[in-house]
Amino acid sequence: MLKPNHDLAAMLRRHAIEPLVFVVSMSNKGKVNIMAAGWNIKCSYDPPMIAVALRKEGYTQKLIHENPEFVLAVPTKGQEDALEYVGSNSGLIVDKSKSNLITLDSATKVKVPIISDARLNFECKVRNIISTGDHYMIVGEVIAALYDKDKPQLFYAGRTPEGKRVYKSLKTHFHDE
Amino acid sequence: MLKPNHDLAAMLRRHAIEPLVFVVSMSNKGKVNIMAAGWNIKCSYDPPMIAVALRKEGYTQKLIHENPEFVLAVPTKGQEDALEYVGSNSGLIVDKSKSNLITLDSATKVKVPIISDARLNFECKVRNIISTGDHYMIVGEVIAALYDKDKPQLFYAGRTPEGKRVYKSLKTHFHDE
Repeated sequence: MLKPNHDLAAMLRRHAIEPLVFVVSMSNKGKVNIMAAGWNIKCSYDPPMIAVALRKEGYTQKLIHENPEFVLAVPTKGQEDALEYVGSNSGLIVDKSKSNLITLDSATKVKVPIISDARLNFECKVRNIISTGDHYMIVGEVIAALYDKDKPQLFYAGRTPEGKRVYKSLKTHFHDE
Repeated sequence: MLKPNHDLAAMLRRHAIEPLVFVVSMSNKGKVNIMAAGWNIKCSYDPPMIAVALRKEGYTQKLIHENPEFVLAVPTKGQEDALEYVGSNSGLIVDKSKSNLITLDSATKVKVPIISDARLNFECKVRNIISTGDHYMIVGEVIAALYDKDKPQLFYAGRTPEGKRVYKSLKTHFHDE
């Protein structure tokens, strides 16, 4: 039965399914950072646009303000450890691009690298940044995409009662491939 | 293997998992509309905020511009037919609030009604509206939430090769309930 609950942040977590992505960003001097972000949204087909909400105190928003482009990489089965690693360490402290859990490659239209073993990579140019409470919403135009149709999508499905993140994967099929 | 693909709108669809919601809105004269929206994002914990991207030619954005509040209701198993119905009909043509697939009830802090058999209802006041290509991004502050902890979350998982929408459900557990 529906009951009012006044812990609104906890209630946001109960809207548990998230289309998790890696966010890759780069400073003007070429330092690369990678994070995991469940808070992302498709927001236009024409032009193609996608947005991601980033914590204001995080390192990625700083790099994107400096160099207004980013890559969103949709993970696949087998990237759970990479997601845990980039999601549990700050780029302010460690250089995550040096981890052997992450395989980077050159993008086609932005300077920021892609993640070469992901299901999908979206190369994005920033078109708008708005403040939403304790996050920045970074709105990007997708200017190129790389896709591996054989890889299932890995997504975030909440946490176990003990607090461990749960990942699930699903294979989607499309009539035109 | 990753390959460039120039149909960028199709590539957005390959980022297939979406945390589907019902969006409930109401005109100043009290006419209620309900739609289905996969494009929504949590974007702040403090204050709690959530945003939804709505097609510029749709009816819901018109109602929200008129009366700047809305309810986001997270569906549960058994609401597949209601989602198909509200997702396949325009409020410009039919009054979806009269369908027996939809059960509305009074909200606690907004005039817009909630969906009483959903997993979660977020009552929201609009704090910002931005233009993102062919959509408006409607940013709301969550001012109240109603939750049924026993109901699994239903979400969108792409389409079959024949084009039919696929819904999946997952039960999530939390240590504090």
